[in-house]
Amino acid sequence: MSLIDVIEVGPRDGLQNQDAILSTADKLTFIRKLIAAGAQRMEVASFVNPARVPQMADAEGVIAGLTEAERKSFIGLVLNERGVERAIASGIGEAGVVAVASDTFGIRNQKQTSRQSVEMAKSVLRMAREGGCRAQTTIATAFGCPFEGEIDPDHVVWMAVEIAKENPLEIALADTIGVGVPAQVKHLATRLKVELPHIPLRFHFHNTRNTGLANAYAAVESGVTRLDASAGGIGGCPFAPAATGNIATEDLVYMLERSGYRTSYDLAKLSALAPWLAEKLGLAQLPAMVSRASAFPPAAASSAA
Amino acid sequence: MSLIDVIEVGPRDGLQNQDAILSTADKLTFIRKLIAAGAQRMEVASFVNPARVPQMADAEGVIAGLTEAERKSFIGLVLNERGVERAIASGIGEAGVVAVASDTFGIRNQKQTSRQSVEMAKSVLRMAREGGCRAQTTIATAFGCPFEGEIDPDHVVWMAVEIAKENPLEIALADTIGVGVPAQVKHLATRLKVELPHIPLRFHFHNTRNTGLANAYAAVESGVTRLDASAGGIGGCPFAPAATGNIATEDLVYMLERSGYRTSYDLAKLSALAPWLAEKLGLAQLPAMVSRASAFPPAAASSAA
Repeated sequence: MSLIDVIEVGPRDGLQNQDAILSTADKLTFIRKLIAAGAQRMEVASFVNPARVPQMADAEGVIAGLTEAERKSFIGLVLNERGVERAIASGIGEAGVVAVASDTFGIRNQKQTSRQSVEMAKSVLRMAREGGCRAQTTIATAFGCPFEGEIDPDHVVWMAVEIAKENPLEIALADTIGVGVPAQVKHLATRLKVELPHIPLRFHFHNTRNTGLANAYAAVESGVTRLDASAGGIGGCPFAPAATGNIATEDLVYMLERSGYRTSYDLAKLSALAPWLAEKLGLAQLPAMVSRASAFPPAAASSAA
Repeated sequence: MSLIDVIEVGPRDGLQNQDAILSTADKLTFIRKLIAAGAQRMEVASFVNPARVPQMADAEGVIAGLTEAERKSFIGLVLNERGVERAIASGIGEAGVVAVASDTFGIRNQKQTSRQSVEMAKSVLRMAREGGCRAQTTIATAFGCPFEGEIDPDHVVWMAVEIAKENPLEIALADTIGVGVPAQVKHLATRLKVELPHIPLRFHFHNTRNTGLANAYAAVESGVTRLDASAGGIGGCPFAPAATGNIATEDLVYMLERSGYRTSYDLAKLSALAPWLAEKLGLAQLPAMVSRASAFPPAAASSAA
């Protein structure tokens, strides 16, 4: 039974696209509830321009509220050199830097073409290393761009090979706008394993077109052992039109564990988190489905078994 | 590029669990819109007790409204000998009979234990053949029961082998309550292909726990070429607590076609059907996601490509 590392991104990717802005105290409560439910690796903040993403304006405050051990094991997202300087100063243990596969999306999201974002990512990886911070890279819009359409997988592979020259902790491919399908996942996972056998792969899926868990399954079947997910399935992208939430941690854990994979989570505790989160966000319902469905196997049946 | 037969079950499984009851005329409009969107095989009625399932009370009326060619190619569901008599009398070309893998569910749904439902299904298959009607069998709750929990896959295989003695057109496994995961799909598909190499397999998934498309993908990767789906993702089961809709035809077609499989559908026409259906059912939103998301690739990008 393979262990799958499910990286919780709710406190960052999940919260950054919500209308409601959680207080720093509520974010810390959210993080502590996730830890109690079994989350071990977690994206907790984004060092971006607070004027553009006010939901993440208190990045330093959130990190200051963590214990030293938490701070050292969690992840802060950065989009440029200024971001990694803030990440290093905050004491967070790991920086995640985003390069982008589409020029149009890159210019709108972070004022960089795809090639410029690769150069920036390499520079950030060097700066993080020199600053004593672990660092990895996510390639955004790797499965499609809302403006340009299909993304050439050759370009994604080229980006990964370039970025790998700076020895990131891992490289992730993100389906930022939720257009990916399992055949793409298999294709990209297989090619990257051949090109970069020494670099661990992570995948980041959104469920905008209902293919999120199918993609996650295709990834683990292709040998990928690191997947992002957000509790309750909250999330989206402020700069991606009509993007909806990340795959939900509880739905992913349900599928993986009933399929014979192991995770670090307690599914009952994870599902119990959803009503609290929905209330804090002022939402009637979260996208996650396992936390709304009845437990399976049902309690009576499991105790009888 | 394999062709996947996507069997549209919206007019039966989709409508049978909705609060709104469509008129016979609206059901026929729904069926004609589905045909225009590419549906070739379709479940259009259920010959069940109208007192228990009023949504299906006009089964004979719907079938009378079809053309002779439509009537001969479509499917009516039956749960017992009385049902198949009605199906034969209606002139429908194909009867689908439901056996059930769980005793508790079977007794609540159709007043039969699992073994009794197998005997009934064999009897119905014989009656249909004698009545000049094609016939197949679906094994309900094959992936789990809301009352009993896990279902022994050995029992499902035993049922299929028994039913195969009457030479059904195909055997389907249904995840009636949406608890299935890809590993179960692969396990059951692989075993049935070994046990019954001469009988085509069909799978029927619900998306109650967000695993529906992952299961569909696991099925086609296991060599299955027949999958049920309902337009808009409507549906459920009147006797299954908290069951939600079938996998959505548009979501399935999107995933399959972008993954290199072919279907008979036109995705744009299929997605355009959702708002009409939502209005007829008095629903603000249907479970399907592709019909709510922006088209991908976007129109500008595709015309430029």
